[in-house]
Amino acid sequence: MTTPTTWSQLTQTLVAVAMGRQPADLVICDGRWVNVHSGEIIPHTDVAVTRGRIAYVGEDASHTIGEGTRVIEAGGRYLVPGLCDAHMHVESGMVTVTEFARAVIPHGTTSMFIDPHEIANVLGLPGVRLMHDEAATLPINVYVQMPSCVPSAPGLETPGASIGPAEVAEAMTWPGIIGLGEMMNFPGVYLGDDRMHAEMAATLRAGRVVGGHYASPDLGRAFHGYVAGGPADDHEGTRLEDAIARVRQGMKAMLRLGSAWYDVASQVRAITELGLDSRNFILCTDDSHSGTLVGEGHMDRVVRHAIAQGLRPVTAIQMATLNTALHFGVEKDIGSITPGRYADIVLTSDLSALPIELVIAHGEVLAENGHILIDIPPYSYPDFAVGTVRLGKRLAAADFDVPALADPPLTPPTGRGIGLPLPGGEGCRVRVIGVVENQAPTKALEATLPVVDGLIQPDEAQDVCHIALVERHRATGAVTNGFVGGFGFNVPCAVASTVAHDSHHMIVVGTDKGDMARAANRLGEVGGGVVVFKEGREIALVELPIAGLMSNERAEVVAAKAERMGAALVECGCTLHNAYMQLSLLALVVIPELRISDRGIVDVRRFEVMPLVID
Amino acid sequence: MTTPTTWSQLTQTLVAVAMGRQPADLVICDGRWVNVHSGEIIPHTDVAVTRGRIAYVGEDASHTIGEGTRVIEAGGRYLVPGLCDAHMHVESGMVTVTEFARAVIPHGTTSMFIDPHEIANVLGLPGVRLMHDEAATLPINVYVQMPSCVPSAPGLETPGASIGPAEVAEAMTWPGIIGLGEMMNFPGVYLGDDRMHAEMAATLRAGRVVGGHYASPDLGRAFHGYVAGGPADDHEGTRLEDAIARVRQGMKAMLRLGSAWYDVASQVRAITELGLDSRNFILCTDDSHSGTLVGEGHMDRVVRHAIAQGLRPVTAIQMATLNTALHFGVEKDIGSITPGRYADIVLTSDLSALPIELVIAHGEVLAENGHILIDIPPYSYPDFAVGTVRLGKRLAAADFDVPALADPPLTPPTGRGIGLPLPGGEGCRVRVIGVVENQAPTKALEATLPVVDGLIQPDEAQDVCHIALVERHRATGAVTNGFVGGFGFNVPCAVASTVAHDSHHMIVVGTDKGDMARAANRLGEVGGGVVVFKEGREIALVELPIAGLMSNERAEVVAAKAERMGAALVECGCTLHNAYMQLSLLALVVIPELRISDRGIVDVRRFEVMPLVID
Repeated sequence: MTTPTTWSQLTQTLVAVAMGRQPADLVICDGRWVNVHSGEIIPHTDVAVTRGRIAYVGEDASHTIGEGTRVIEAGGRYLVPGLCDAHMHVESGMVTVTEFARAVIPHGTTSMFIDPHEIANVLGLPGVRLMHDEAATLPINVYVQMPSCVPSAPGLETPGASIGPAEVAEAMTWPGIIGLGEMMNFPGVYLGDDRMHAEMAATLRAGRVVGGHYASPDLGRAFHGYVAGGPADDHEGTRLEDAIARVRQGMKAMLRLGSAWYDVASQVRAITELGLDSRNFILCTDDSHSGTLVGEGHMDRVVRHAIAQGLRPVTAIQMATLNTALHFGVEKDIGSITPGRYADIVLTSDLSALPIELVIAHGEVLAENGHILIDIPPYSYPDFAVGTVRLGKRLAAADFDVPALADPPLTPPTGRGIGLPLPGGEGCRVRVIGVVENQAPTKALEATLPVVDGLIQPDEAQDVCHIALVERHRATGAVTNGFVGGFGFNVPCAVASTVAHDSHHMIVVGTDKGDMARAANRLGEVGGGVVVFKEGREIALVELPIAGLMSNERAEVVAAKAERMGAALVECGCTLHNAYMQLSLLALVVIPELRISDRGIVDVRRFEVMPLVID
Repeated sequence: MTTPTTWSQLTQTLVAVAMGRQPADLVICDGRWVNVHSGEIIPHTDVAVTRGRIAYVGEDASHTIGEGTRVIEAGGRYLVPGLCDAHMHVESGMVTVTEFARAVIPHGTTSMFIDPHEIANVLGLPGVRLMHDEAATLPINVYVQMPSCVPSAPGLETPGASIGPAEVAEAMTWPGIIGLGEMMNFPGVYLGDDRMHAEMAATLRAGRVVGGHYASPDLGRAFHGYVAGGPADDHEGTRLEDAIARVRQGMKAMLRLGSAWYDVASQVRAITELGLDSRNFILCTDDSHSGTLVGEGHMDRVVRHAIAQGLRPVTAIQMATLNTALHFGVEKDIGSITPGRYADIVLTSDLSALPIELVIAHGEVLAENGHILIDIPPYSYPDFAVGTVRLGKRLAAADFDVPALADPPLTPPTGRGIGLPLPGGEGCRVRVIGVVENQAPTKALEATLPVVDGLIQPDEAQDVCHIALVERHRATGAVTNGFVGGFGFNVPCAVASTVAHDSHHMIVVGTDKGDMARAANRLGEVGGGVVVFKEGREIALVELPIAGLMSNERAEVVAAKAERMGAALVECGCTLHNAYMQLSLLALVVIPELRISDRGIVDVRRFEVMPLVID
């Protein structure tokens, strides 16, 4: 938000406009006022705006119109408060905050609560500050949640940076920080972990909101323990009973419709069928891919979907406006079309289909009929944010060799591993990360793979190929090798990605070690992203030079590249519905069962690093 | 509140109790949970409490019970969050904050938002600080609103102290200050008065709530101007349309049921009949006399009344708990029975009749079946707060002489006024303050009164008697004399009061100047209060030694004295329904039509001091 003027600075000006002593900057005439406070739709309403804030809402603003006043005729269209996304990760769109905003403004989003958890794993607090400072330049409201769990799994991975109570306390003094980002370490909360509790305490002391993330179906003691620790919302609920439990305990149930999350329909029944008070329900996206933003929308898509589930339109809109604003303590700035608040207003002619016809934020008309009308300059990221893929060396095919040794150590930067040679001949039994279609959890599989020249080989017949985690934050040159099943690759190929939740090293999956090395090196050259090599040739590339996570190209450009990348994977024989997403989660050492990290192959059921080769 | 422990200090302790790792201090078993978040009643609920806060609410807290845990069997009774009074003046009860709390705790009130407007008029910021500091010693939550309008009518009266933007900014740094008290100077707001706007801006900058007070039926431009200035609530609405207008504009409609205010029934129809979202409706008392507290109750009375108007009990309870907490930004401390919040819980066996059977605050059992169970020591007020009635001299009957002179000036401390003798004989035409039964506004009457020995006389036949305003803050000895009609006094008598809104000088009304002098001097002796003299003899006295406004006796003692005082007025022939209240408002120079102040006779329609004698 561009140095907004506070209501406290404007009280006399707003009153002067409301009274007709001073002309408004903008007047919207004859709208249907979607009043999220009273729950009414009030026809024939005028709105007068000055200095970006609302001065008057009522049946006749003609007294506020002067010579220089811009007048917009609503012609009976609905005036909806600008939509708010209560919890989301910009990085999931693979674009900068600026480009994300540019993509979602035409969809009526005027406020975002972003958790820059991914960049925090790469760049730490300075990365969070970067996105915080970028957010402050934008024409819509972007509030930042301070990431809480970096690393996600201490001891099981080594991110590019870490965040603890001191960083949280510092961030709470920044103007754009609205609270603590999702507290994913829910066992840490209910087991009384000092570090997690100190982060929550620092947030509560600052009078800010602790974001929750209780990703467990257990609504028993562990859930009650989590609630007592302070998290005030949760977007990880998926079932009706999850929403009910959270609301009863005084949390906000954040219902999520992301690119790959469909958690609204089941939970909204708490309102539509059981009649729970809707004030504690909030809508969010969590993760939206560029393709979703370009092709389907953003919060307009979520509200539309919520209405389609049987919610009253006004109730669904409250869940994306007033409820969100109240939750984060910014109701005097956003969330309703009432005096004093920012003039964040969406015009639509249909409250169910919700076509986003005009988008106004801070009194400026930003978009019309899906097209952005203003110029938003790209944000200039400093060098430290764009040179983050540090491989320490040029990788060779041999870096992905897996010697048939018991307990193979990490490949040292200089070459091959050392260990005890196994009795060869019948192949070698190894752990295999089993990808499960359309699910985030993996299976901890085992397979017997052929051994050639002392090296364990992938096996197309078993659909098992190489996976490697390439250290990329500290240029150690270390590569962790393993095997993954389920991609379906049937040609010599490789895919590499520096989007590798949560520590965002580089994941490389492939059938051909030469292509794996090419893919890894290519990402080293472009500063990160996703690349696909097939038979020695690059067939798709999404450059993500900012922290290896984001592009500062337009969302539609990135979406097109991402689409091409998906097609390239299919060309390599991949059968997964969303192979890229599966790929990017293979290092997520907080979700069962088996993952890869810079520490080795991790059994998340036991929170232990396991040997790749089974004796 | 006795140095409460914040949630941020207790996260690990609360979690440990919720998980059963540490025993609770208190467990309430088998209640019906009035869940103000979800709007449900949930049977068979246990609550575990530690260090004054709630650790667990759920179906079974047996794992939190240890050897030292106190267990209360609710036996299926309802568990209601402690009730909150969203706006009130302690001084209206004529007792200290301590004695007020003692009186209302058995009625289930565990949070009060008090505006010490009256003491501020006598003692200024130090007076506010006194009540703020007293509030902090109590076992319930007492939040203080910083008075905004002292004096109420600058230029028309001289209070004991004044408050401006600097004082407001300072108070906003005090721990117990929750916002700005009712902004009564509504013309100042909509006309853009610098001082009023600076006070509101200081409050908004501090992130606090600007309390409203828009006491006008005009819902047009002036109302819109007022809203744009920042007041966030209003308890001055009396009509259905008042509530609707406030809620639509993003304000909270505070519905008031005080000792003499009956504003709930008409306005609650916005919910019961028109279906407005109830979240923006809040209940309060504003002014409760000791007699009401002792005989009828406090917030329990208001909630009961609201339910009797057709509200769902849960909705009415939300309006006295959660809605209030959210409005003032203290929802993480009060307003619901959920983990982390103070254990402020009321047990009742009937959700409509609402008998208050057990009252718990901060986990301590404070009252049972109408009886307080704890000892609350009286608060020790410093000398500067108890010697506030400074008359500067012993008053004599002659101080109340009204010479038949054109434009009589204020009586100087030394004796009689000087001016031009009027042509005597036919009496003298004077302005008379006309009291209107059961209404706060007065009428600007005129009467021709007899003149004897150059002095204008009261006239029982016309029901016109003396009124005087005796300066009591600066010991100037000044007396403003005038005439008032409507009391019905028919014997030689006088009543004097140092409760004289808003500047709280001393008002004396009587038919006998000797009794007037005796009454005034008596209040000087006791440091303020209300006294009635009849035929030279004191027949009733309510001592209010603290600032001339409050007693530190028990509410029931004060209520009995106040009742006796009312009876004494009847013995003097008074026919008014509530003569004391009428008396105490006769100097309120913000309510039309005619008032008395230390500056003279004020015509509030013109905001001008007028000559008593009409040429």
